[in-house]
Amino acid sequence: MSTNLKGYCLPLSPEGRAPVVDPPPWHYGGDVLQVVFKPDPKEAARVLPKPLEPHPDGLALLWFVEWTSVSDLNPDLAYVNPERSQYKECLVAVQCRYKGEEGFTVPYIWVDNDFTLIRGWIQGFPKKLARVYMTRHHPLNPKLGPLRPGVKLKGVLEAHGERLAEASLELVEEGRVEDLPRPRFFLLRHFPSIDNPTRPAVLELVRSVVENLRFRGVWKCRAELRFYPSRFEELDALRPIEVVGGHFFSLGMTIKGGVVLEHLA
Amino acid sequence: MSTNLKGYCLPLSPEGRAPVVDPPPWHYGGDVLQVVFKPDPKEAARVLPKPLEPHPDGLALLWFVEWTSVSDLNPDLAYVNPERSQYKECLVAVQCRYKGEEGFTVPYIWVDNDFTLIRGWIQGFPKKLARVYMTRHHPLNPKLGPLRPGVKLKGVLEAHGERLAEASLELVEEGRVEDLPRPRFFLLRHFPSIDNPTRPAVLELVRSVVENLRFRGVWKCRAELRFYPSRFEELDALRPIEVVGGHFFSLGMTIKGGVVLEHLA
Amino acid sequence: MSTNLKGYCLPLSPEGRAPVVDPPPWHYGGDVLQVVFKPDPKEAARVLPKPLEPHPDGLALLWFVEWTSVSDLNPDLAYVNPERSQYKECLVAVQCRYKGEEGFTVPYIWVDNDFTLIRGWIQGFPKKLARVYMTRHHPLNPKLGPLRPGVKLKGVLEAHGERLAEASLELVEEGRVEDLPRPRFFLLRHFPSIDNPTRPAVLELVRSVVENLRFRGVWKCRAELRFYPSRFEELDALRPIEVVGGHFFSLGMTIKGGVVLEHLA
Amino acid sequence: MSTNLKGYCLPLSPEGRAPVVDPPPWHYGGDVLQVVFKPDPKEAARVLPKPLEPHPDGLALLWFVEWTSVSDLNPDLAYVNPERSQYKECLVAVQCRYKGEEGFTVPYIWVDNDFTLIRGWIQGFPKKLARVYMTRHHPLNPKLGPLRPGVKLKGVLEAHGERLAEASLELVEEGRVEDLPRPRFFLLRHFPSIDNPTRPAVLELVRSVVENLRFRGVWKCRAELRFYPSRFEELDALRPIEVVGGHFFSLGMTIKGGVVLEHLA
Repeated sequence: MSTNLKGYCLPLSPEGRAPVVDPPPWHYGGDVLQVVFKPDPKEAARVLPKPLEPHPDGLALLWFVEWTSVSDLNPDLAYVNPERSQYKECLVAVQCRYKGEEGFTVPYIWVDNDFTLIRGWIQGFPKKLARVYMTRHHPLNPKLGPLRPGVKLKGVLEAHGERLAEASLELVEEGRVEDLPRPRFFLLRHFPSIDNPTRPAVLELVRSVVENLRFRGVWKCRAELRFYPSRFEELDALRPIEVVGGHFFSLGMTIKGGVVLEHLA
Repeated sequence: MSTNLKGYCLPLSPEGRAPVVDPPPWHYGGDVLQVVFKPDPKEAARVLPKPLEPHPDGLALLWFVEWTSVSDLNPDLAYVNPERSQYKECLVAVQCRYKGEEGFTVPYIWVDNDFTLIRGWIQGFPKKLARVYMTRHHPLNPKLGPLRPGVKLKGVLEAHGERLAEASLELVEEGRVEDLPRPRFFLLRHFPSIDNPTRPAVLELVRSVVENLRFRGVWKCRAELRFYPSRFEELDALRPIEVVGGHFFSLGMTIKGGVVLEHLA
Repeated sequence: MSTNLKGYCLPLSPEGRAPVVDPPPWHYGGDVLQVVFKPDPKEAARVLPKPLEPHPDGLALLWFVEWTSVSDLNPDLAYVNPERSQYKECLVAVQCRYKGEEGFTVPYIWVDNDFTLIRGWIQGFPKKLARVYMTRHHPLNPKLGPLRPGVKLKGVLEAHGERLAEASLELVEEGRVEDLPRPRFFLLRHFPSIDNPTRPAVLELVRSVVENLRFRGVWKCRAELRFYPSRFEELDALRPIEVVGGHFFSLGMTIKGGVVLEHLA
Repeated sequence: MSTNLKGYCLPLSPEGRAPVVDPPPWHYGGDVLQVVFKPDPKEAARVLPKPLEPHPDGLALLWFVEWTSVSDLNPDLAYVNPERSQYKECLVAVQCRYKGEEGFTVPYIWVDNDFTLIRGWIQGFPKKLARVYMTRHHPLNPKLGPLRPGVKLKGVLEAHGERLAEASLELVEEGRVEDLPRPRFFLLRHFPSIDNPTRPAVLELVRSVVENLRFRGVWKCRAELRFYPSRFEELDALRPIEVVGGHFFSLGMTIKGGVVLEHLA
């Protein structure tokens, strides 16, 4: 780096302890409430950044996730300070194609802490802050018992004093990993210039590099999904025309970084 | 009730939907980081409300817990709105005796939401608000793997801009349910009068009525525990002279309410 | 007090530093967004606890307030730790009569911290936790300038992931203190028993004892008010049939405590 | 912009409503607790990014600020949704020189919401999230009265469960605008690459373009300042060797953007 200070990102500092995010690889373990749905194809097409193209299947995913994340640099972060390592997230992923390759892009995504917000922007996940609530179905609660058909789970997203999304799942039967849409992300990295609001300093189409992807405890679910309007959001334009289904599962993965497919600016 | 409004507690309302807490029974499932320690016996004795007496073993427990709770009235609360059903808690329990019977009292306890704070006051748990952080060791995180000897867990308590407590555990070996101190609570219910600050409207010694107590996944741990001073707290007077050990475990239980042992006012 | 521990309320402690609230008198300074409105008279009557009776004028107030509060015991609390002394609040007050005397009762009220929540319950304000947002119109902001006719102010209340209320004010002209409804509160103190959910330990009708009431900077406003439905609230039953007007003002006051008018249990 | 989506920053969207920040100009009004101090000159020099050089006076500023901010694009934001327009901030500014020109750089800064965090990164303010508490001395509180000599004010900064900074001021006498250090900022814009952690995509030295700077209500204060250590911060390396003084004042300003002085990567 061309400065005397240390760090993967701001705030650079003399000892390199202050930056809000460690460099990749980043390692994740999480529990996911997933709704698979079809938005209005015209609205889905509108959120795809050129040169991404719509996918004929027209699917979208809504995820509520509770994550524990660490890095190679600080693999014990979940112990050293859990607050720096754990967060909840809500994202909508829209199916797309890039030069014939299938994948998803993420137009809207919310989290509840700073390290994950900035780590998102670095990758092209356009994270904003919110309150994210998810059912933690504790099997020892005498009224809840173990996960089994009939158990219901909910995810709620609220930001700037407004409920934005609500996903409702009911476990039907154990599912198979093969049923899960594979998250393969084509993302838009964007960072403004400070001296020209119309010409960004960074504008890149990137593909996430994900390894060690493992799933466990997959449940197939009935699902309902609701988006709410807000002056500060456009999420509800992607409201479901059809809900295909839902899943509850755990996953682990490593994000090594990303590959820049195209410089768009 | 002698009023036209409905509800177990405030705010009473025409339909009975507004009260912040449902009546008991209340059902809980949670994951616990526990440190067993010995505070200064003189300080432990000072926090016991008459007529509770010190216990010769002089033990105390520090618990960090992540709970999912529901009631008979709203057994599906964890689904209907997770935010109304889930919370984190940190408490210190001090060994004591009541008329020869062994148990614990809880002088200090913090939670992160209103329904559990009020439900605590109703039972004699003197809950205040705080931020509570606990390691969620996700087994699918490629850097974390399954719970096993050597895994480290942390609990951090912060309130009014100050860290108050930090518990650090390292899993040593699977433990036995029999090793766990049985939480049997003698609590002080107290509610002020509005017209006489020196004479409370409620002052009762109560014993919690707990049923359906089940433990699972008990781990014996090495433990460290630190309390920090604050102008607004007296927790650090109970700082450990000796740490006996730690445990990580899950539990479920039902609280039916309490038995009033003595009216003290 | 009949115990060895010290404090006005829980948690009682050896030195008396731990209790979440100091005894009265309590001293307040705050800025208020007020909407004066008429709910459905049948719904207004339903929220009045016996023996309070409806007032023929049928008015109600919606207040958003940002408070700084201290006590005689800790008059420097706003300096020692601002977090223990400052909070935002949203309340609805409904006009009523008690034995011919005019006043207001407060069926629903939300705050954003523990000390004020418990202090409310002690007085008969049935406070719950929420996020409260209010316009702080800073006169030095080059786009805002000083308070003057045309300036707009907003209050937003959100709890458990749902927006509950929104008040919108537009300053019309300087107002007079005489235009302001005098808040004279008849409140219901209620605290459950732990051994009998149907018979509360405390059930009292009280009148607040307020002194040193001063108003300043009164503005008369156009106002709009919206309540939103929620499964966990009944606020929207009091939605305005007619909005009479609004005010923005600052006030200061001392609450000495309350007078118990009747024991209702 | 080279994409079909609209917006000054992420998340770009079809209608341009979703981005977390509007483009400049941005307009601010705020109340500031300021401590002027001298850190260890060696530590101050260490935080200056090349090519910034130390200033012989060796001063630093600690600011606690409560801001109301809007943009040209949404000048009514403080009314439309106060939560999107208001925040608290804590920053440390270190005196420096750039090619002989005097100014300050900001190595560390914390805020409590997303729009201001991202707006900071865009300008070169390396913002992280925190809880910021500041005394709001309300003149109508019967125990507080108007601002006058002897009034005490406090700022407290807490992040990831640890108190990081505490500023204590006591008003001495009315001050003069001329006494205030002029904040002229030389900032480091930095944004990582996604495909090479060692070579940032953006590394620029910028100078903020600030207009409409106005001060009001300046008070000269006695001051104390304390920084606390943290594994995740290096703020306490800048702890005061000498506290020169403090001020309390209000200010307004417009930030038009910034001028890129040098590309450093």
